[in-house]
Amino acid sequence: MAGGVTVSSEISSIRSPRVKAARQLARRSFRQRTRLFLAEGPQAVREALALQSRGVVTELFVTGAAWSRHDDLVTEAAGHGVPVHAVSGEVMAELAQTVTPQGVLAVCRFVDVPLQRLTEAAPRLAVLLANVRDPGNAGTVLRTADAAGADGVIFSDASVDPYNSKSVRASAGSLFHLPVVAGCPLREAVAALRGAGLQVLAADGGAESKLDEPGPGSSLARPTAWLFGNEAWGLPRDLLALADRAIAVPIYGRAESLNLAAAAAVCLYTSARALRS
Amino acid sequence: MAGGVTVSSEISSIRSPRVKAARQLARRSFRQRTRLFLAEGPQAVREALALQSRGVVTELFVTGAAWSRHDDLVTEAAGHGVPVHAVSGEVMAELAQTVTPQGVLAVCRFVDVPLQRLTEAAPRLAVLLANVRDPGNAGTVLRTADAAGADGVIFSDASVDPYNSKSVRASAGSLFHLPVVAGCPLREAVAALRGAGLQVLAADGGAESKLDEPGPGSSLARPTAWLFGNEAWGLPRDLLALADRAIAVPIYGRAESLNLAAAAAVCLYTSARALRS
Repeated sequence: MAGGVTVSSEISSIRSPRVKAARQLARRSFRQRTRLFLAEGPQAVREALALQSRGVVTELFVTGAAWSRHDDLVTEAAGHGVPVHAVSGEVMAELAQTVTPQGVLAVCRFVDVPLQRLTEAAPRLAVLLANVRDPGNAGTVLRTADAAGADGVIFSDASVDPYNSKSVRASAGSLFHLPVVAGCPLREAVAALRGAGLQVLAADGGAESKLDEPGPGSSLARPTAWLFGNEAWGLPRDLLALADRAIAVPIYGRAESLNLAAAAAVCLYTSARALRS
Repeated sequence: MAGGVTVSSEISSIRSPRVKAARQLARRSFRQRTRLFLAEGPQAVREALALQSRGVVTELFVTGAAWSRHDDLVTEAAGHGVPVHAVSGEVMAELAQTVTPQGVLAVCRFVDVPLQRLTEAAPRLAVLLANVRDPGNAGTVLRTADAAGADGVIFSDASVDPYNSKSVRASAGSLFHLPVVAGCPLREAVAALRGAGLQVLAADGGAESKLDEPGPGSSLARPTAWLFGNEAWGLPRDLLALADRAIAVPIYGRAESLNLAAAAAVCLYTSARALRS
């Protein structure tokens, strides 16, 4: 083993108690009970370790092959006193739930913050996920929100769990970058954001108002929370009614609609430009 | 059976020769040999039937449950003389390759067009996929290009097959909406697009030039072909060199990058606006 980190002998059985405990975090109920989740791959582990002042990483699993490639991560984790477990490829495959595991996986403490933390920080661009069910979509929107400079993302209580392994993976580290609020009732979130001075815009393919050109006088130059609905059936009437206005990304061709992540990218970048212009 | 369409008795065996022949279209080599592919779900089947003047749909498979829901599609197909096969749920599951098949599936002729067809039509916005390997990403970019009013999408010979079932599904019907060129060498496509008066812009997260604000004088007001690279490693130097300019979507937050489909959505909509302004 490289890097001078002391570890116990390699765990090669998926029946090892440590492996079984970590494996259970694939289930939402266990994540909720323990407030722990799994972050797989060097990028996610690196971002998690960057929050180690908050004690985010509680354990690290690494294969022999990945150890030599990512010695820096192992050394950093061990330096923070994080227990490091060498594991066989078979054990990693069991834990990682991906077709091609990258050989390094962290058990992490939940990183979400209370709604108030987000609204008190004078946010100018926020995202509200209502009824988003596909974890890949949710993670991609989180990553896009981060790229567009958003001040926070709220997963409403009817949306997918941000700690679902597919969502964590699709967020590509962004889960660790910006304030995330998890499991908040949608009405409460809308009220708090409006109280913080944000307009609430619902992205709705059927809306008559089309997304503004950014520029002087654009309504998007005001602090904005974007409300995104379910990937298949959009926003139902009662949720649309919560917003100040519904806005559609214009369709210039013959597609019926955009997929959720693409629509979110267009809306968030249009807002980001307008807020900066 | 509804709709007065005559069919032979329901196929309930996955060993039926018709089912086996259709099932083989899951493999690229069989698709290439027969120039046929599978389109699953009512939306895709409807869009394919809209091209029936070109004889796109050659067979239709439908379950009893889907028949009553989508009687219009079955009647339309039968009216065009398309053989309709009633199949059991088990057979549909075998053919559809999805977790929850929607009960209707068409065997379709390839719809791609020669490169020249695209370049002769005075395109103003085109998409070039270089080394895009994930079929879901490729199909999503095709859908987004359609929504943004692009005049065509070129899948280079190193990219995923547009007829891959996941790509067809992610395109949400757009495969049937706009000219698609398949399996074209990238250099040839770039030369032809440039010959047709388009500037070639490479989307590259590492580029120094950032995506323009649309507006008067924007370089995006010129006819443009966007070159998108691989989802994991972007565009290698030799492909970047093919473009007139490399442009990055600006990252305002802490994300390292955007995912391919999100970056494409931002680039294509920025171009669409500039071309219309």
